[in-house]
Amino acid sequence: MYIVDLINKKRTNKKFSKEEIKYIVNSYVSGEIQDYQMSSLLMAICINGLDSEETIYLTDAMLESGDRINLSSIPGIKVDKHSTGGVGDKTTLIVLPIVACLNVPVAKMSGRGLGYTGGTIDKLESIPGFNVNVSIDNFIKQVKKHNICIGTTSSTIAPADKKIYALRDVTGTVSSKSLIAASIMSKKLATGADKILLDVKYGNGALLNNMEDAVDLAKLMVYIGNSHGKETRALITNMNCPLGNMVGNALEIKEVIEILNGRGNKDLRDLCITLASYMVSMSKNIDFMSAQGEVLSSLRTGAAYQKFLELIKLQGGDINSVKISSNVIEVKSNKAGYINSISAINIAEAALKLGSGRMTKEDTIDMSVGIETLKNVGDYVNIGDSLARVYVGNKEIDYNIVLDAFKISNIKTDKEPLIYGIIK
Amino acid sequence: MYIVDLINKKRTNKKFSKEEIKYIVNSYVSGEIQDYQMSSLLMAICINGLDSEETIYLTDAMLESGDRINLSSIPGIKVDKHSTGGVGDKTTLIVLPIVACLNVPVAKMSGRGLGYTGGTIDKLESIPGFNVNVSIDNFIKQVKKHNICIGTTSSTIAPADKKIYALRDVTGTVSSKSLIAASIMSKKLATGADKILLDVKYGNGALLNNMEDAVDLAKLMVYIGNSHGKETRALITNMNCPLGNMVGNALEIKEVIEILNGRGNKDLRDLCITLASYMVSMSKNIDFMSAQGEVLSSLRTGAAYQKFLELIKLQGGDINSVKISSNVIEVKSNKAGYINSISAINIAEAALKLGSGRMTKEDTIDMSVGIETLKNVGDYVNIGDSLARVYVGNKEIDYNIVLDAFKISNIKTDKEPLIYGIIK
Repeated sequence: MYIVDLINKKRTNKKFSKEEIKYIVNSYVSGEIQDYQMSSLLMAICINGLDSEETIYLTDAMLESGDRINLSSIPGIKVDKHSTGGVGDKTTLIVLPIVACLNVPVAKMSGRGLGYTGGTIDKLESIPGFNVNVSIDNFIKQVKKHNICIGTTSSTIAPADKKIYALRDVTGTVSSKSLIAASIMSKKLATGADKILLDVKYGNGALLNNMEDAVDLAKLMVYIGNSHGKETRALITNMNCPLGNMVGNALEIKEVIEILNGRGNKDLRDLCITLASYMVSMSKNIDFMSAQGEVLSSLRTGAAYQKFLELIKLQGGDINSVKISSNVIEVKSNKAGYINSISAINIAEAALKLGSGRMTKEDTIDMSVGIETLKNVGDYVNIGDSLARVYVGNKEIDYNIVLDAFKISNIKTDKEPLIYGIIK
Repeated sequence: MYIVDLINKKRTNKKFSKEEIKYIVNSYVSGEIQDYQMSSLLMAICINGLDSEETIYLTDAMLESGDRINLSSIPGIKVDKHSTGGVGDKTTLIVLPIVACLNVPVAKMSGRGLGYTGGTIDKLESIPGFNVNVSIDNFIKQVKKHNICIGTTSSTIAPADKKIYALRDVTGTVSSKSLIAASIMSKKLATGADKILLDVKYGNGALLNNMEDAVDLAKLMVYIGNSHGKETRALITNMNCPLGNMVGNALEIKEVIEILNGRGNKDLRDLCITLASYMVSMSKNIDFMSAQGEVLSSLRTGAAYQKFLELIKLQGGDINSVKISSNVIEVKSNKAGYINSISAINIAEAALKLGSGRMTKEDTIDMSVGIETLKNVGDYVNIGDSLARVYVGNKEIDYNIVLDAFKISNIKTDKEPLIYGIIK
């Protein structure tokens, strides 16, 4: 096989065989195929697409490029949870303690953030002492004993995906549903859970801007998961507004604690309850409403919060030392009216500029900075009312970016639903 | 401007501005844009296209990336001739002496061959001593005095095109009409002729396989040329069969001599007469039939052949030392019937495997090898009749490739016309 022939094949919109896709993935990992050839092929895939069969071949080739984690020694049905990424998405840190305290084992491998999207691992590292580098043996041991562990994805999991993802990021080839699906699912399948719950986000703060694309992506991933014998479900959720009121690593830990204590943002709380209920339902094979009953009870009794504190302690973190910047700027409204939306992309951009995320993989993060929105969609505000608090570190920003995120009008428009539906 | 934004722009099929295309070309030449980013962008261009305005912007940006040759000190209207490349295409070496002896100055910059397509410079180098590295001063001096000079394209002519072309070759991004047109026209415009005659080939032995694509490419190049104030015409010609009877460097020099002496392949002769007549007509501003009269006369009197010998001598070549391999294998027909076609791509593949061309830029060429077809389309052959002679050097090949090039059938089909038409 010659790579130029294969590139020409996809350029002219023809279908790859399983062997061709395997050749492409393996030869790229080995260095036989050059970056400039792979990027040309990735662009042809972005425009001409892969069908669902080709996407499964790609998923499998990336899955087989690395190690697979065997969780079979952990009793019970393990359900993995994955979000396609959004602004202020700290659901993993809320949902996992809930389900773990309900006796659903969660062995979670998480990633770091890049660009506008935060990463669970970064948020955890804002807790001083928290160790995310857990060996596989200790990882499994901790889940067996405590039902919960969160660690970084090992570099030996789907290394082909890592190399391809890094290239996609700098070559304008990120937004292909097939490439996204294969990238996510190869990692999910490698990390050994029995069932998979996906949170596929759409909107200005998500990878995919419109709902139809999110539904297509969700269907594709559910198909891949089910084809591999792992029951897979996907919630389709809105990411036009930030999730919750806090964006920024330490701030989000603070919001996790609020939600686990029954306070805080209603949308975030509702989504976490839904995600946790699906996970409990899938793991225990019980109906959704019974699962939701257990979830609500775990929040009411404080069992979920205790499990969260247990997790932090188990992995060496000191929850009392989380530091949020004391240099706080309040952003006040310059008009009166109803808040009809809060732009996720604006808030994300402001947070990124404050230093809460990485523009490139080499950037370091300032854990203490971020943005807290003080008003929610639907609220009425007067001129001079505080809309948000900006927690500033050593980088100044233009606060108009935050102000402009709030769309304020005389007329109150309907709020977009947070959860659009579920794909099974 | 950020390259990833520009890649995304073309991925989503939006139009580039003049400034954006200039940024892309200049930043790629300077190394700011990486190969893997450029190849991704080139693939997006291959699939989503550039419109004629964008193609002109690209041509101009590549043209402006390097030097421009000033031929204004040479009296008369200089017409450049360019072929998009084919199998056995030695027309430049026949046409240029014809027009030069008719007082039409030709200052020709030529390229080397790559893949199936031969290059005029390689063919000339099969003449021992022939020097293709002529300084610009000597180039112009020789044209002034003798009306003819053929040299290699300087590396300072459209360097952006050189870098982009090399990348296209290994990334499956060759066959975009806009990229082909901009590549050819940036060089033609840089080398200073007043008018341009193009020979755009289609068929299995050409860059573009079907006639419609060739017509589109021709129209685009004529539009670019005319937009730059240089009258441009393009013949559309068939490249399903090799041009003439010889393929291989020294062999093609032999065929040039035959045609200039009034012998040899009729199709090749007809095409050369047509090309030369258009060049004379364009340079002297006379009608085609008058020009053709002059051309035919130059062949009849031997003036064209004398001009060819003069060119060889001027540039240091020894025409009597051209060496053709004496190791000749005859390929005989295994069936009787009419030859309905001779596949250009098969003959090209066989010649390339013999060593007459380069698979990669680093390959060296065996000037003495090649293939001579002994029968033409329309001829009747019996079993055992010789179809071709293969001139072998130090590389053996499977002679069935040559045999299979001849499509022989009981029924004689109509021969495809060699010249389809002209675009003005």
